[in-house]
Amino acid sequence: MRAEIISIGSELTSGQNLDTNSQWLSRRLAEMGIPVLYHTTVADDLEANLDVFRAAVRRADLVVATGGLGPTQDDLTRDVLAQTAGVELALHEPSLRHIEEMFSRRRRIMTDRNRVQAYFPANADVMPNPHGTAPGIWMTIGDCRIAAMPGVPSEMFAMFEQEVRPRLVAAGLGGGVLVQRKINCFGAGESAVEAKLLDLTCRGHVPDVGITVSDAVISLRIIAHAADLAAAQTQIGPVEQTIRERLGTFVYGEEAEELEDVVVRLLAEKRWTVATAESVTAGQVAQRLGRVPGVSEWFRGGVVAYTNFAKMNLLGVRAEMLATHGAVSAPIAEAMAVGVRQRLGTDFGVSTPGIAGPGGGTEQTPVGMVYVGLSWDGGATTMSWNWAGTRTEIQSRTAKLALNALRLQLMKTV
Amino acid sequence: MRAEIISIGSELTSGQNLDTNSQWLSRRLAEMGIPVLYHTTVADDLEANLDVFRAAVRRADLVVATGGLGPTQDDLTRDVLAQTAGVELALHEPSLRHIEEMFSRRRRIMTDRNRVQAYFPANADVMPNPHGTAPGIWMTIGDCRIAAMPGVPSEMFAMFEQEVRPRLVAAGLGGGVLVQRKINCFGAGESAVEAKLLDLTCRGHVPDVGITVSDAVISLRIIAHAADLAAAQTQIGPVEQTIRERLGTFVYGEEAEELEDVVVRLLAEKRWTVATAESVTAGQVAQRLGRVPGVSEWFRGGVVAYTNFAKMNLLGVRAEMLATHGAVSAPIAEAMAVGVRQRLGTDFGVSTPGIAGPGGGTEQTPVGMVYVGLSWDGGATTMSWNWAGTRTEIQSRTAKLALNALRLQLMKTV
Repeated sequence: MRAEIISIGSELTSGQNLDTNSQWLSRRLAEMGIPVLYHTTVADDLEANLDVFRAAVRRADLVVATGGLGPTQDDLTRDVLAQTAGVELALHEPSLRHIEEMFSRRRRIMTDRNRVQAYFPANADVMPNPHGTAPGIWMTIGDCRIAAMPGVPSEMFAMFEQEVRPRLVAAGLGGGVLVQRKINCFGAGESAVEAKLLDLTCRGHVPDVGITVSDAVISLRIIAHAADLAAAQTQIGPVEQTIRERLGTFVYGEEAEELEDVVVRLLAEKRWTVATAESVTAGQVAQRLGRVPGVSEWFRGGVVAYTNFAKMNLLGVRAEMLATHGAVSAPIAEAMAVGVRQRLGTDFGVSTPGIAGPGGGTEQTPVGMVYVGLSWDGGATTMSWNWAGTRTEIQSRTAKLALNALRLQLMKTV
Repeated sequence: MRAEIISIGSELTSGQNLDTNSQWLSRRLAEMGIPVLYHTTVADDLEANLDVFRAAVRRADLVVATGGLGPTQDDLTRDVLAQTAGVELALHEPSLRHIEEMFSRRRRIMTDRNRVQAYFPANADVMPNPHGTAPGIWMTIGDCRIAAMPGVPSEMFAMFEQEVRPRLVAAGLGGGVLVQRKINCFGAGESAVEAKLLDLTCRGHVPDVGITVSDAVISLRIIAHAADLAAAQTQIGPVEQTIRERLGTFVYGEEAEELEDVVVRLLAEKRWTVATAESVTAGQVAQRLGRVPGVSEWFRGGVVAYTNFAKMNLLGVRAEMLATHGAVSAPIAEAMAVGVRQRLGTDFGVSTPGIAGPGGGTEQTPVGMVYVGLSWDGGATTMSWNWAGTRTEIQSRTAKLALNALRLQLMKTV
């Protein structure tokens, strides 16, 4: 069993647009246990398309194509499939009626070119497209099964799920499933995490466990290939439990969860409020919290205090303290967190003094040196970190560091 | 002249990674006047690779390949090229020395597998890789020229520019140049912009003018194909001038410039300072300003005032004003901008009350309703806008709206 994905369109081969359909399709096919050996992208050129489809039909058992089904002259897929199969194009009445209805519903005038979209290779099975005018094509050439879908991602996604996937299953292709589980960690380096999981991440372990890092967030991905969902979950369950046990509070969430999602969930559970006092992150802690729907009940507001004047005036930090310790220091981190909590009357205050660079570093507080301060009823804490990286990396990583410190404190505080 | 790009790696055909090298290469080749007809991506499988390279050599005049040059057993490109050309692999002494040096410099132990990277098809020209251990390969099979480069994007980019591009020019390929110019606008809809430029955006216009929209920023891209750089710029110059004349202050910048870059440049030119008072944008105006290196001299700080309490306590907004007008209103927008300017002693204050949703909307102030307030020495102004979109879209577009309002005011104020 080997599959090939073909993407059709000069906007792709010219580099104007990025092909993301092929990746999406590869993942869906992998989940069904169908390995993809080739992605081919071809310009809107008849000879080149014929060449590509002939090669694909020869070397693959399944071809999944996207694009080239529109009404314009450079939409060639219907012709190419008919020529590759050695058959004629024939009018498909239900498709013609569907296209006519789409046009009348949108109150637009239908041209002769739109009729072209209702012609299909004589032996083809037409796959309806509820989201657009271009139906898809399911057919067999020799031993090779072919699914041709529109290139518009939303139309393609729907057609794959509703039309192609059931046909693949009915054809006995796609035995088994691939199930993925993602666990997200913060606060430890990649190699430190891997050192705790060497027996799981080694090649050949079942299920497969991979580590990736993105902007200081470490993700563990457990991938199980199995006969069915239950068998895959039997593989994943114990490994997930082992990972969570070994990594403890480094694990903050799963799948697409971000640190701010977890922080807002904890705030909501305990009905606690928070305020931010930012410097190096320049508003990014607030902005991340602000992304989460419903946050305004728990996030009362914040201050971005770039200057000493702002730290004094908006947060009540004392001038002599700034003079003694410098603006980027643990005492100032604490004073900022305390100040914003008092001013906004919240349960928690979080602060982020630091140096994002590229300028402004000194020997004592180099670029990348940051502090996070936390204040709550009955306590305060600070931590420091020294990041390598660009200005925007230092800013986004410090925002995550602050959210993570807040998360850990929210979990501890009763 | 037809080119094919081949990307090698199972991480691509499996959908694990997204192939962005092909798009980058297509754009570089298009700039050199070399049209790309095919992108092919192939798994780490010997037979599949041979099939792909044989087809490419037959149908293309130029093949640019990436990946498969590493030291592991699934790195097949050297073998595949040798077999496709019908030649043996031979040791290339300078490459072996380069690899040995890389290892000794990094204090790592070199294995026999790393020696493999110094073997090349007998008739090949070896392209050095200053950024990694895998050299590239330049060779000819039949009439087809082949450039094989590492798949790591940073290594590939450098090798293309330093090694492949000069060889393409020397081989007489890549006649002509493609020069692009991007002009960025904010504050008008796509169709309103297009209506002013219909004579330029029509098909067949020389040079080509395209419009794209991304998160409320409208970009015009002028694309000139010409014999040389001077001829391309002669095409672009007058069209750019026409666009700038017709669109006036809607145009805020060019190429990768963002609104915050322009705002900070204007602030620095006039030595003016600004402070932010955010609500719906939750810190994003501050965060965008904070991205720009050197901004801390002009951006003094800000406040994120989600609650009425924060608006009163941090910005001095009067309680009876909030009761009379509601927090999301023009008078409050002005009061917030005035308040933050006074508190932080800046030349300008900018504010963003509004409703990001998904909850919190009313009939009078629905989700998507936002205000921007500006305050400066001797004046104040407010504007309102009603966005459609998700919470994050409303937030990012309002942040841009505020930055654009500030930009326009900075240009007006003497």
